[in-house]
Amino acid sequence: MSLTAPLRGVVPPVVTPLDADGEVDTASLARLVEHLVGGGVHGLFALGSTSEVVYLTDEQRATALSTVVEAAAGRVPVLAGVIDTTTARVGAHARTAAKLGADALVATAPFYTRTHPREVAAHFRQLRQDVDLPLFAYDIPVSVHTKLSAALVRELAEDGTLAGLKDSSGDEGGLRRLLVDLGGREGRASGPAPDFSVLTGSELTVDAALLAGVDGVVPGLGNVDPAGYVRLHDAARSGDWDAAAREQERLVALFAMVDAGPEAEMGRSSSALGAFKHALRLLGVIDGGATAFPQIPLSADSVDLVARCLRAAGLTPGR
Amino acid sequence: MSLTAPLRGVVPPVVTPLDADGEVDTASLARLVEHLVGGGVHGLFALGSTSEVVYLTDEQRATALSTVVEAAAGRVPVLAGVIDTTTARVGAHARTAAKLGADALVATAPFYTRTHPREVAAHFRQLRQDVDLPLFAYDIPVSVHTKLSAALVRELAEDGTLAGLKDSSGDEGGLRRLLVDLGGREGRASGPAPDFSVLTGSELTVDAALLAGVDGVVPGLGNVDPAGYVRLHDAARSGDWDAAAREQERLVALFAMVDAGPEAEMGRSSSALGAFKHALRLLGVIDGGATAFPQIPLSADSVDLVARCLRAAGLTPGR
Amino acid sequence: MSLTAPLRGVVPPVVTPLDADGEVDTASLARLVEHLVGGGVHGLFALGSTSEVVYLTDEQRATALSTVVEAAAGRVPVLAGVIDTTTARVGAHARTAAKLGADALVATAPFYTRTHPREVAAHFRQLRQDVDLPLFAYDIPVSVHTKLSAALVRELAEDGTLAGLKDSSGDEGGLRRLLVDLGGREGRASGPAPDFSVLTGSELTVDAALLAGVDGVVPGLGNVDPAGYVRLHDAARSGDWDAAAREQERLVALFAMVDAGPEAEMGRSSSALGAFKHALRLLGVIDGGATAFPQIPLSADSVDLVARCLRAAGLTPGR
Amino acid sequence: MSLTAPLRGVVPPVVTPLDADGEVDTASLARLVEHLVGGGVHGLFALGSTSEVVYLTDEQRATALSTVVEAAAGRVPVLAGVIDTTTARVGAHARTAAKLGADALVATAPFYTRTHPREVAAHFRQLRQDVDLPLFAYDIPVSVHTKLSAALVRELAEDGTLAGLKDSSGDEGGLRRLLVDLGGREGRASGPAPDFSVLTGSELTVDAALLAGVDGVVPGLGNVDPAGYVRLHDAARSGDWDAAAREQERLVALFAMVDAGPEAEMGRSSSALGAFKHALRLLGVIDGGATAFPQIPLSADSVDLVARCLRAAGLTPGR
Repeated sequence: MSLTAPLRGVVPPVVTPLDADGEVDTASLARLVEHLVGGGVHGLFALGSTSEVVYLTDEQRATALSTVVEAAAGRVPVLAGVIDTTTARVGAHARTAAKLGADALVATAPFYTRTHPREVAAHFRQLRQDVDLPLFAYDIPVSVHTKLSAALVRELAEDGTLAGLKDSSGDEGGLRRLLVDLGGREGRASGPAPDFSVLTGSELTVDAALLAGVDGVVPGLGNVDPAGYVRLHDAARSGDWDAAAREQERLVALFAMVDAGPEAEMGRSSSALGAFKHALRLLGVIDGGATAFPQIPLSADSVDLVARCLRAAGLTPGR
Repeated sequence: MSLTAPLRGVVPPVVTPLDADGEVDTASLARLVEHLVGGGVHGLFALGSTSEVVYLTDEQRATALSTVVEAAAGRVPVLAGVIDTTTARVGAHARTAAKLGADALVATAPFYTRTHPREVAAHFRQLRQDVDLPLFAYDIPVSVHTKLSAALVRELAEDGTLAGLKDSSGDEGGLRRLLVDLGGREGRASGPAPDFSVLTGSELTVDAALLAGVDGVVPGLGNVDPAGYVRLHDAARSGDWDAAAREQERLVALFAMVDAGPEAEMGRSSSALGAFKHALRLLGVIDGGATAFPQIPLSADSVDLVARCLRAAGLTPGR
Repeated sequence: MSLTAPLRGVVPPVVTPLDADGEVDTASLARLVEHLVGGGVHGLFALGSTSEVVYLTDEQRATALSTVVEAAAGRVPVLAGVIDTTTARVGAHARTAAKLGADALVATAPFYTRTHPREVAAHFRQLRQDVDLPLFAYDIPVSVHTKLSAALVRELAEDGTLAGLKDSSGDEGGLRRLLVDLGGREGRASGPAPDFSVLTGSELTVDAALLAGVDGVVPGLGNVDPAGYVRLHDAARSGDWDAAAREQERLVALFAMVDAGPEAEMGRSSSALGAFKHALRLLGVIDGGATAFPQIPLSADSVDLVARCLRAAGLTPGR
Repeated sequence: MSLTAPLRGVVPPVVTPLDADGEVDTASLARLVEHLVGGGVHGLFALGSTSEVVYLTDEQRATALSTVVEAAAGRVPVLAGVIDTTTARVGAHARTAAKLGADALVATAPFYTRTHPREVAAHFRQLRQDVDLPLFAYDIPVSVHTKLSAALVRELAEDGTLAGLKDSSGDEGGLRRLLVDLGGREGRASGPAPDFSVLTGSELTVDAALLAGVDGVVPGLGNVDPAGYVRLHDAARSGDWDAAAREQERLVALFAMVDAGPEAEMGRSSSALGAFKHALRLLGVIDGGATAFPQIPLSADSVDLVARCLRAAGLTPGR
């Protein structure tokens, strides 16, 4: 499905179910896509951070992306993360993603390196030139350890390099300034980059982000409760902000499942990813809750917390 | 004026006008208080970061606080910042502030030091015990370089140590989790800390923060346009979220005045504080735009930008 | 004692013994000064970070400094920390320190604020102009959260603003570049700032710093074993680098006492300061091991570790 | 050449010359290996950060490693960096490196992710189990954004997982504590991990690191002047610390070539890598000074600086 510009709506980053050998569980992944599309989402983001992309080999990345594209079957657009350290390596992923049928690409700035903003700009321009697909910049300082400046994003939006921004920086004030610079809630279409999509990676402030004028939301927790995020989104689009905020509050409470693994014993991302996967397993969507090595698995107590959060949010664990 | 619990509304951090010798310009400060109270604000926060508190000697702090208390004349409560490195020094400021008529105190965790959360908890408990005034925790990692955890804030809220939180952390997701833990938008009164006030220090996402359920907002830009923030607040309180967002967008555009000093030549806080002060000077509220030494003054070009931002936001510079 | 330029040798940051009420224990402090001077140190740094300066009220700072000056009785120069957030407040401490007989001042860049390097330069120049004492810049990013650049230090060394640098940045490579820029191990006297003193705050790499050409060392652990650091220094000055390294290794092992408080339960600085103080108590130098509120006291197990470290280093606990 | 334990001496990270198309210039790389081996180095580290490893595709990595292994021809051991985000991807590089003839592997902790120390330990243990080659941990927080704790390194040294540590953390104090824990300058052979090699990545404090007892040094600048680092090393090994320090000072001055690109216009690593490559070009060792895309090339002025630094250090540019 070709991407209409700008991309709008709920676009969850699709988790990658793994089997007992650590390989992509394609049957579970296909069921997850059905769960998401059935929940009403407007797009899918495969091979993102929540998809454990950086834990996957190139072959596993290809398997995961192909599975998502085939299962989506053109019903919603599929964005593909092309996450790697620098331009040449990202470009290789981008060419593969294009071949496998991705509708758009999502790339970060270089990481591991210390890269100047002018070099970051060259990086995105080269990627855009290499592969003829809409390109989203992925701003995720917790992983990349640099922040894309609003000035840089705007420059690359205006010159057509970028089709959009996935903002996982947590800098809501900076995001608001960018949105106003692009024309604001009502002036975007006549602004300097009318087709540019602004997406937030937040799970906890989606109502606020929609009030601020973002086009779409990419919530990891949307794997677990896509219908909840779609209700939140629809309430906001219809101007019923109180309903949106109530739904957001229910989802914030559900998000407490990520506290599952005590920080003293496992990494924060291991705990969040393990919680989402176990929730999907408990809901009967995927077969197992395993995360990629070397992430530590959730303990039984942590899985119990996940189950309690599901029930408290009105989601019935099926197994 | 005694503080009703919980504190709600618009509570600007009051800038401290300085004369040519770097001393507190009390006449200008009194006019600024009139400007703010006349704009409809619900409280005043003296001796905050925006007040350049850490640039002021103890005598200057006393002068500034006395002037604000006297000018406010009981019409709105006055919160006093008691900002210093550790408990004993903060306690001394707290006793002075109580004598000078402050209605509540605002304290950060210790800084310069490397202080453990259990030590931070002891710090706030000692301050609460030392001075019988409502105590707000001021979470401002950009200055203090540690973040107050939601668990710690909740513990100190539930046991009555803290009357509230001024959150300038920029972590909107974490703030939302805290608000939901405290009962959410509709359940706060029956939650674990019913009188606890949650205030955001953001200037750019006030509509979003109010949608999330904060009690009050402490915007530095509120010095320049208090009436704008009061309109934003009132629209939000009446449920007219679109009007709130439109007002927020106007204020976001106005905020561009802080870009005045190019980062290459002066500090970011110097540029923001200089912009607010020059805006107040241009609006005829205070006499001069000077910031405290060693902050570099705004250039003429920067002052021009401030004037353009004022005009674009519908505020007419008078001089 | 007036400061000969450049300052050279072992200059411990003097810990501040506290009594049961948290007040400065002047008798213990005077005995500590004897312990240090008796150990052969070449100077004393009062009111530094290791002195818990930011925990002390202005009165306590004055008491501590006076006690050190009087006990030193001109036998070695006394440097005084003038640690506070910004120029006006630091200047007040500087005037007091001058009155109380300090031989030199040690100041950081502004903190809590976000201050531009040009503003930092103005800060040091103003302090130098305000008080006629040699001024040392204290580069301690773990507390101040900015790093003084080598270019800025050199500028302020060459123009006579700074008499020296106390480098607690841990950036040994950067320090080496500065030393080479100033003329290197043999060319300092004919270099761009011949009287400029470079001091390292390290406890663990003093031999290496002396090999690199620093003039002096300011080791917190030097409170516990001044004679050890003097032996290390003398071995280095005489070119016996193997003896210096052996002594350094003994002191590195002694330093393990700072691991006393498990990080899970107290701040790192609380644990280091508590260990130094308990070591001095066990050695019979000071009366108590208390650190300033709100720092958590060492547990009995931690004190046992301190005692074991002392014995292993050949220092006999006397009580 | 099989690796004798522990690895000792000068082991430069070999830069990867690139041709006009951005491909590995194997002829230049082979000449560089001759330059290094001819300079007396004791080992070669291919595919490290200085080799621009994260800019290279898998094919380019293989080409570079094969070229180094063939050119070294068993005269010195070749360590191969296996730098990638997580275990599965690193493992794939490790298997390739083993096939291509590497004598040892150098791996970082996972990056991009937020990985717990227990997960990092599992990562290294899995890699050691997967490929039967000595494994070095590469501690480079500026790129990986976490620091390997001394406790973790010691645990993995004692249980035989790690053959050594390449420490590019800049934490010289922490490194000294580790060395003392392992037995110190004279007690390593009878310590808890007698065959464990400790290497420093520093270029500027090699004399100090050798005085502290490191086994080897991995200086990027060693590409330009291998003989200088070998002289430094030999002087230190023979106990002539003054000669070592003099040689170090010459190399510190030579290192100023990395200031070539003003930070305002290019990344720091671009400027350092570009300087090393242009120096090698000027010395007639490699054909071109290009760095990998998107790094900005050195300006003509910057290349002039490189030439001046070479001449000042007594190295004659040949072209």
